[in-house]
Amino acid sequence: MVQTPKPRLGIAMIGYAFMGRAHSHAWRTAPRFFDLPLEPELTVVAGRSPERVTAAAHTLGWAAAETDWRRVIERDDVDLVDICTPGDSHAEIAEAALQAGKHVLVEKPLANSVHEAEAMTAAAREAASRGVRSMVGFTYRRVPALQLAQQLIAEGRIGTVRQVRAQYLQDWLADPDAPLTWRLDKSKAGSGALGDIGAHIVDLTCFLTGQRFAGVSGMLQTFVHERPVAETADGLRASAGSQRGPVTVDDAAFVTGRLSSGAPVILEASRFAWGRKNAMRIEVTGSIGALAFDFEDMNVLELFDAEEPARTAGFRRVLVTEPDHPFLEAWWPPGHGLGYEHGFTHQAVDLIRAVANGENPEPSFAQGLHVQRVLDAVERSSDSGNRWTEVPSNTAV
Amino acid sequence: MVQTPKPRLGIAMIGYAFMGRAHSHAWRTAPRFFDLPLEPELTVVAGRSPERVTAAAHTLGWAAAETDWRRVIERDDVDLVDICTPGDSHAEIAEAALQAGKHVLVEKPLANSVHEAEAMTAAAREAASRGVRSMVGFTYRRVPALQLAQQLIAEGRIGTVRQVRAQYLQDWLADPDAPLTWRLDKSKAGSGALGDIGAHIVDLTCFLTGQRFAGVSGMLQTFVHERPVAETADGLRASAGSQRGPVTVDDAAFVTGRLSSGAPVILEASRFAWGRKNAMRIEVTGSIGALAFDFEDMNVLELFDAEEPARTAGFRRVLVTEPDHPFLEAWWPPGHGLGYEHGFTHQAVDLIRAVANGENPEPSFAQGLHVQRVLDAVERSSDSGNRWTEVPSNTAV
Amino acid sequence: MVQTPKPRLGIAMIGYAFMGRAHSHAWRTAPRFFDLPLEPELTVVAGRSPERVTAAAHTLGWAAAETDWRRVIERDDVDLVDICTPGDSHAEIAEAALQAGKHVLVEKPLANSVHEAEAMTAAAREAASRGVRSMVGFTYRRVPALQLAQQLIAEGRIGTVRQVRAQYLQDWLADPDAPLTWRLDKSKAGSGALGDIGAHIVDLTCFLTGQRFAGVSGMLQTFVHERPVAETADGLRASAGSQRGPVTVDDAAFVTGRLSSGAPVILEASRFAWGRKNAMRIEVTGSIGALAFDFEDMNVLELFDAEEPARTAGFRRVLVTEPDHPFLEAWWPPGHGLGYEHGFTHQAVDLIRAVANGENPEPSFAQGLHVQRVLDAVERSSDSGNRWTEVPSNTAV
Amino acid sequence: MVQTPKPRLGIAMIGYAFMGRAHSHAWRTAPRFFDLPLEPELTVVAGRSPERVTAAAHTLGWAAAETDWRRVIERDDVDLVDICTPGDSHAEIAEAALQAGKHVLVEKPLANSVHEAEAMTAAAREAASRGVRSMVGFTYRRVPALQLAQQLIAEGRIGTVRQVRAQYLQDWLADPDAPLTWRLDKSKAGSGALGDIGAHIVDLTCFLTGQRFAGVSGMLQTFVHERPVAETADGLRASAGSQRGPVTVDDAAFVTGRLSSGAPVILEASRFAWGRKNAMRIEVTGSIGALAFDFEDMNVLELFDAEEPARTAGFRRVLVTEPDHPFLEAWWPPGHGLGYEHGFTHQAVDLIRAVANGENPEPSFAQGLHVQRVLDAVERSSDSGNRWTEVPSNTAV
Repeated sequence: MVQTPKPRLGIAMIGYAFMGRAHSHAWRTAPRFFDLPLEPELTVVAGRSPERVTAAAHTLGWAAAETDWRRVIERDDVDLVDICTPGDSHAEIAEAALQAGKHVLVEKPLANSVHEAEAMTAAAREAASRGVRSMVGFTYRRVPALQLAQQLIAEGRIGTVRQVRAQYLQDWLADPDAPLTWRLDKSKAGSGALGDIGAHIVDLTCFLTGQRFAGVSGMLQTFVHERPVAETADGLRASAGSQRGPVTVDDAAFVTGRLSSGAPVILEASRFAWGRKNAMRIEVTGSIGALAFDFEDMNVLELFDAEEPARTAGFRRVLVTEPDHPFLEAWWPPGHGLGYEHGFTHQAVDLIRAVANGENPEPSFAQGLHVQRVLDAVERSSDSGNRWTEVPSNTAV
Repeated sequence: MVQTPKPRLGIAMIGYAFMGRAHSHAWRTAPRFFDLPLEPELTVVAGRSPERVTAAAHTLGWAAAETDWRRVIERDDVDLVDICTPGDSHAEIAEAALQAGKHVLVEKPLANSVHEAEAMTAAAREAASRGVRSMVGFTYRRVPALQLAQQLIAEGRIGTVRQVRAQYLQDWLADPDAPLTWRLDKSKAGSGALGDIGAHIVDLTCFLTGQRFAGVSGMLQTFVHERPVAETADGLRASAGSQRGPVTVDDAAFVTGRLSSGAPVILEASRFAWGRKNAMRIEVTGSIGALAFDFEDMNVLELFDAEEPARTAGFRRVLVTEPDHPFLEAWWPPGHGLGYEHGFTHQAVDLIRAVANGENPEPSFAQGLHVQRVLDAVERSSDSGNRWTEVPSNTAV
Repeated sequence: MVQTPKPRLGIAMIGYAFMGRAHSHAWRTAPRFFDLPLEPELTVVAGRSPERVTAAAHTLGWAAAETDWRRVIERDDVDLVDICTPGDSHAEIAEAALQAGKHVLVEKPLANSVHEAEAMTAAAREAASRGVRSMVGFTYRRVPALQLAQQLIAEGRIGTVRQVRAQYLQDWLADPDAPLTWRLDKSKAGSGALGDIGAHIVDLTCFLTGQRFAGVSGMLQTFVHERPVAETADGLRASAGSQRGPVTVDDAAFVTGRLSSGAPVILEASRFAWGRKNAMRIEVTGSIGALAFDFEDMNVLELFDAEEPARTAGFRRVLVTEPDHPFLEAWWPPGHGLGYEHGFTHQAVDLIRAVANGENPEPSFAQGLHVQRVLDAVERSSDSGNRWTEVPSNTAV
Repeated sequence: MVQTPKPRLGIAMIGYAFMGRAHSHAWRTAPRFFDLPLEPELTVVAGRSPERVTAAAHTLGWAAAETDWRRVIERDDVDLVDICTPGDSHAEIAEAALQAGKHVLVEKPLANSVHEAEAMTAAAREAASRGVRSMVGFTYRRVPALQLAQQLIAEGRIGTVRQVRAQYLQDWLADPDAPLTWRLDKSKAGSGALGDIGAHIVDLTCFLTGQRFAGVSGMLQTFVHERPVAETADGLRASAGSQRGPVTVDDAAFVTGRLSSGAPVILEASRFAWGRKNAMRIEVTGSIGALAFDFEDMNVLELFDAEEPARTAGFRRVLVTEPDHPFLEAWWPPGHGLGYEHGFTHQAVDLIRAVANGENPEPSFAQGLHVQRVLDAVERSSDSGNRWTEVPSNTAV
């Protein structure tokens, strides 16, 4: 078996903090476990601090470092731009990259406002007509257990979707002295728990059901209004300084809503849920069954089949580590679980394949825009006494 | 040790279906495991069908049977009237019994309307001034794990309450051919999932936090609008007939709200949650810890203590079967769990003790009225686009 | 529907401590929930202390009290003798009762020695020929989840039994200052963890598989050799005195063995397993599936069906509270769990029915004898370096 | 911050199947997440088939491929030899490599016989005197939850170790038509479930308690004696051919034993446990607490602290993803779990650091030899009716 070298896919990554480390790992690892049509190359990473970005390039395995993302986009050896910066810079970078003919992967949330997200979606649509691909990084879609859930729902295994219940619970802000990072600054982060973690369960609801949100009622909550300013704002873990500053985002969001089919949805996102570290849970109930997932036990999907006789019916704990489970053929024997970063690797795999095959990957910018519209409707509802707020359809773009 | 006979407490029970069986068991069993100041006597049970009520008296251990509840109330050997009928008859019976100087235990919900509940509360208040006691049967308050939860919160173990999340999930209506019983008839039951099971988590939220609801936003849902009429409407389990009739209540209720302290609450009640049989779950998060409970594992309380070092912190699975747990001294050794009916026995114990000690037991009719007001506010909110709806305080009675 | 009075079944109970309370509850409760052919009557309870037995009769609901068990056996109004004393008195009482033509229920273990158990079994066989019934109280057989497990195995749902793994874990002796009760005295209790709790998992292995033990290898362990003498030896809960005495039984037992089919078994019984309160766990693996149970979650049976496609296979958490589950029709709606004492009630139900129908109930004395032979073989193996020790078959009696 | 290039550590890997993929990932990934004193370089991989090893080198990221492991050992640019072949070739390769002054990492089990393991241990001891390091790949030691368990026990958090209970349960052979791979051939694999998975729980027992095994009683079981021969013997997943061949190893092993302190141990390894995919479970009970782990939920350690008041005591579910948990500082935020391969990465990290610091890493060959002696004693005990068999101490080497 002679190996003919595969065509390369030059990657440029903008930003190198938490998400940058996860994305770098994905680009490095994907070709080692999956048979890909293109060979991803970690061409260049960009960041503002020359020293830090150079160190990051070395540590994370990038061939070069740059301090100006615009220069990166101009490079001929870059085919795909991977945007891992905070949400306030997504629009500008993504639009420039698409304009330059580079495929784009942008971390979620797509943008900090509906307005920006609309412009990005329009740009992506236009770029697609030129064969340029774009994708938003709702990585949890590629956790194998959630891929399996989506397949089972699409196959009709639980029947018609009747209701969705989801929670995204963390506790890293429950201590009032946890430092004030950029994630608590509305101008950088757009919103708080709502946009950071609530966005994931909004997107997963759409992914799993194949539907969109028709409307929502929302209630936002900030528990702690002032915190010690973080000493290092852009690393993975910040420490608290002596000065204090205002929290300008929500700590928790509570949402009821309806999907396009009318099915009710109830969602909660909280960073104050003591003891829940990354409990992203979603349960979809259909007319003949139900599925349940909790990220704290991420290799498991629970399935209830209502067509079983009641005598032996019960939620099954399916360990999603079998060779015929999504992405699992490439990994380990049954029972040898995957971790958080595998979702990023799977995302890289699917994006590389889409680029090679000339297909538009999902989640698209349009899907990212829909999430943004839902978040926006939640905020507007919260501002006006939880009143029912319709989520405009994307056809309005 | 010579036994002097205890003073007796003559009980009359109105209704003998599901709740009647549970209450009868409680009255029979309480004095066998607990040292009580009064000896409860199962004096008389009342029901409309002479044959059925006679059979029920025999099976459940009542000394006599009656077909007219009014005659029961007149009896001199009856000290306490235990009302186990559907909600539409609660007000009339309870008021008559209190008027006649009988202590009253009324199954939840207190009534089918706020109006009735107000009248009952006023009657109870007046009766209390004459030494007559009244109590509403939110039995889950006396599950030992929930008693323990209440104690721990009151002791400050989780600090200030920050948020409450509760669900009451069942699936017995998920099959569209499940029969149309009185519980699906608004005129009998008042409301559906909201009043039947949602009422429990509203009450528990108040019980555990020691607070009341300030306001709510609600969304109600009926999934199946027509069902086969039940052949036997008042037994424990009904079978479907060939005729069909309309469902006039909600199948599921979705609520966001705030307690008197401003703490946010999110609640869901559904009888359509496939695979969840009696999953009454409540999690209270405070400033320094959290507590979680699920009735499907009713002998367990989960406790997270945020003052533990993170290295060894985690939700503890406390098996609430130790001698120093509430009510447990009377039962079995550690690890030998209790069942559903024990809550009723504990309720009987506390009510008998309150009567003997001249104290007003809880939950009071006023507390039952508050639950009713919350349910009513949810319905009104749901009727007007989820809009924020204040829950009037009881001082308005 | 006219009620003709049922024939009565007069019960005499010998002993009234922990087991006596559970048995009394069962006799009182069985006819209230189950339609029985005979009406059990709590005729008389016997114990050595006149004051205590009188108080117990009053509290537990027995019509009379006696201090001499022999007088009880002579009574014409006693049809069935229920023996709840420590194991050293079982043989004498049971043989006398059977001789007198009384049906006998004897608490487990059947006796403290194989010799006694053999004599009792011979007596039971002879009595059966006269229509007198006998049963040994391995109550856990009548936990609904274990009844269901037995049915599923008998129906072939998991195929041929391949292996059994069981543990019975408690922690009430893990504190070296826990008091020295009769359960730690070899002359009263026969053995320690082995006979008290190990006996249950030996019996359940036989019950679930329908097989007997062919041979065993055993290892016994005493962790704490001296303890403070208990102040009150026969109550439910003893307190430690100032004197100390020797522990003469095992604290834990470790067993490997084979069933009559050759299937391997691994068992552990320990009273030193910190954090495990009453974790009686058994998992039976067959050629096409497996079943798992843990008493700490006693309303659940876990079922793995290997004939499911691997993609959606997983242990199902069957909540054994459905109307078509064993004994459940009589109790509450789905999801409303049962507790420890229900096994005793179900045992009473089955025994009453067997007496009425002229059938020999199970577990029989012969089955109790087999358990005794297994325990004896474990002790002999432990005394001789774990060597393989055959369990004699009952045909040798 | 200027980056001075780190000294390199040239790695040669022998074998490239299941373990080879895991090890390659570890060498590639360790320097990307951990700050290491040496830069590992994937210099060369060796295997018998020229085509396959070349393909593997390309896929797994090795700079060169070789078909003769002896040539690899001679290379000057190789500093460390990583042996991932079946157990029958371990001794020869390891001894040659140590002789040539190369550090050695050898996959578990150390060898297929005690005799070989003794020779390897002697060679490792001699090599250590020359500064050459050796390590055996019991990777599960470096699962963070098990590292934490070891630390807590060493700190005295559960007091004196009283007993250990462990199981390693899989089901990949439960289907009698699963193919006959080299793992079922005694000449290649040494033993079956005992050596393949039982070895892990033997090693973990030693690791966690800091003790060795004094003696054991063992019982081995082969359920299926003949299987279809595998078509491809050295890939990750084999398919069944039409010919059949004999299974010459055990399918399950059942062990009771004692540690050097006398503490009892009970172990089971089975590849026939339907529904258990990789359930490596270990529970260590001490005098004041207990710890429990299950690899199917590998990011969790359960801790019971017996010094808590009983009222709030319970097993804590510690999510081992906090920055102060072993190895976690390098990875993701709390709640973002790790997967199976992380143990290999951590093993690489510790080995690289030991080499750089001139320390002997653990588990040593001597520790691997002890495991081998335990497995051997189990086999000998099983051959002679479970009789107690002492495990010779390593001082006899």
